[in-house]
Amino acid sequence: MTPARGAAPVRRRTVRVALGDRSYPVVLGQGTLAELGPAVRRRTGASRAVIVTERAIGRRYARPAMASLRAAGLRADRIDVPSGDATKNLDQLRSLYDALIRLGADRSAVVVALGGGMVGDLAGFAAATFLRGLPFVQVPTTLLAMVDASIGGKVAVNLPQGKNLVGAFHQPKLVWIDTAVLRSLPERERGAGFAEIIKAAAIWDADLFARLEREVDSLRELHPQRLLRVVARACAIKAEVVSRDEREGGLRMLLNFGHTLAHAVEALQGYRGVLHGEAVAMGMVFAARRSEALGRCPKGTAERLEGLVSRFGLPTELPVFPRSAYLAALSVDKKKRDARIRYIVLRGIGRAGAVSLTPREILPAERSRARGGGAR
Amino acid sequence: MTPARGAAPVRRRTVRVALGDRSYPVVLGQGTLAELGPAVRRRTGASRAVIVTERAIGRRYARPAMASLRAAGLRADRIDVPSGDATKNLDQLRSLYDALIRLGADRSAVVVALGGGMVGDLAGFAAATFLRGLPFVQVPTTLLAMVDASIGGKVAVNLPQGKNLVGAFHQPKLVWIDTAVLRSLPERERGAGFAEIIKAAAIWDADLFARLEREVDSLRELHPQRLLRVVARACAIKAEVVSRDEREGGLRMLLNFGHTLAHAVEALQGYRGVLHGEAVAMGMVFAARRSEALGRCPKGTAERLEGLVSRFGLPTELPVFPRSAYLAALSVDKKKRDARIRYIVLRGIGRAGAVSLTPREILPAERSRARGGGAR
Repeated sequence: MTPARGAAPVRRRTVRVALGDRSYPVVLGQGTLAELGPAVRRRTGASRAVIVTERAIGRRYARPAMASLRAAGLRADRIDVPSGDATKNLDQLRSLYDALIRLGADRSAVVVALGGGMVGDLAGFAAATFLRGLPFVQVPTTLLAMVDASIGGKVAVNLPQGKNLVGAFHQPKLVWIDTAVLRSLPERERGAGFAEIIKAAAIWDADLFARLEREVDSLRELHPQRLLRVVARACAIKAEVVSRDEREGGLRMLLNFGHTLAHAVEALQGYRGVLHGEAVAMGMVFAARRSEALGRCPKGTAERLEGLVSRFGLPTELPVFPRSAYLAALSVDKKKRDARIRYIVLRGIGRAGAVSLTPREILPAERSRARGGGAR
Repeated sequence: MTPARGAAPVRRRTVRVALGDRSYPVVLGQGTLAELGPAVRRRTGASRAVIVTERAIGRRYARPAMASLRAAGLRADRIDVPSGDATKNLDQLRSLYDALIRLGADRSAVVVALGGGMVGDLAGFAAATFLRGLPFVQVPTTLLAMVDASIGGKVAVNLPQGKNLVGAFHQPKLVWIDTAVLRSLPERERGAGFAEIIKAAAIWDADLFARLEREVDSLRELHPQRLLRVVARACAIKAEVVSRDEREGGLRMLLNFGHTLAHAVEALQGYRGVLHGEAVAMGMVFAARRSEALGRCPKGTAERLEGLVSRFGLPTELPVFPRSAYLAALSVDKKKRDARIRYIVLRGIGRAGAVSLTPREILPAERSRARGGGAR
């Protein structure tokens, strides 16, 4: 029995990523992990599945996922990879290839990434390259991965010299989101995940932004229906941007809102002590203030963004490092210190654009002095 | 002044690989290496080029190529990789990434593979994955790479467990073939290169096959015009097959003619003492005999193929190993010893098809006893 619209709560939503013959659905639901198998079977035609997961996630969720795959007639195996972004590297990739070979995985196999963005990126890149490409399904278990990393086909590993330097565009056949798994996320990580939802709203959808303002408390408590709705809307925004610009020719760049400074903060902190979503939160508030200072958006835009960010328990100020350190971190190539960066600014709540700025223009000296905080 | 057709010898031919927005030209000529720069510039729009080459090749040919790139306004750098197929692995790939980073290569760079198939595969896979994909140009310097590996976008590295287990489909923007460089190839390697030209003729083009029969002596002496013509025709065959079937759904499989046994021979020999083209030559003659025995082609087909192969100085008989060793080598996965293989048979000179056979059917016991050679 399908509940009538509006009568009973909606328990399932589907967002389509439209990319021609590489199109795929993002299927969202509450408590749907045990229904993964038939969907994988239908979308990939694979006769076997290899779940790649982090140990902690796997202990909790691999069992229902595997049972569901087996019930759908697939052979199901599981490969555990270590936790944490530091393990998304060439050594782990090699271990993953070895494990795939030990399992005898061939072109009849689908790789199922069960975990956060790190697992999705590593497993996705292995899927993109093993035997020149296996089909691939994303089952994100963090809020951040649900609304951002799992959609769009960007997969990558880090090199010691930098993040995501080696990668591919390999679209999944299916993204399967069960928001019920978020209950087991630590409070702080859950909050960080909202940063990318706020970002989607800030650059694209004033209505979603207003909804986040209204529902912040129930969302932080993971109210099932409200959560499903805003996650689905954030996924739809990502899907729309990716559909219009798969390989970052232009529009996809807007998704970098807040990320220029976020990446600098993460690098300066040595990727410790700050979650990606927290860094994005700081970077967004900074970028909104710069947008105002540059006359790109109405006064009050930054204050409104800052208000929402802080109500989600996220930080709004950049950590204090010397300005020179920030400038160096913004200049990926030290020899190109004056190279211009496509910096994403708000044009108002729900609208964004790109401007071409040097690191010094992004982070002017007088500004940090005037505010006393952030970069010195 | 362009010479009138038929009056003066043709010094340039262009073959188009038609793949929608990933289409590219294969430009063939004699002594055209020093004209590479403008073509790279025009096809990629890159502002810099990184030539990846083997030391021995680089010593001879990198200088004119780099000079031409610089004259066309590109910054040109060079990375040397060790020679030999054994170096097409994850360690070399990592070194190549490191070298690209040291050079500060960014998305404005095009990777130019200057060398044989190994260099093309390694450099091509690095180009496919570094920064999620850089544009890529193939400048093949062996006959084998010219007519086969450089066209079609298959790039890969080996794992210790097997060849080409990790790879991608990454089409080049341009394939630049200067047949003059073949003069410096050792006689044996040159001969091996003709194996893939014979293969192209055998599966696709009876006219080319007849031409090879007529011109074998002058081709072995690298007669410039005749060589250019048959190389261009072999490239055109490869281009046509790839255009119709980029990702090996069906037609592209025909290019595997002779390769099932060739791979087995190479593996059994530990990839030593036999050139790929030589293994393909043996595999083709074997496959033609099997095609006859299976009633798939007219009597005399195998003899005609064998005649051409041996006139090119290529081997026609499989090396002697126990049948069980061959069977094991044909069964990539030991647990799937009875799995069927898509085996390519001739339907006559110039026509091929696929049949589904088990390793035992490909290599029946009575056959090897009857002939006394090959597998025992």
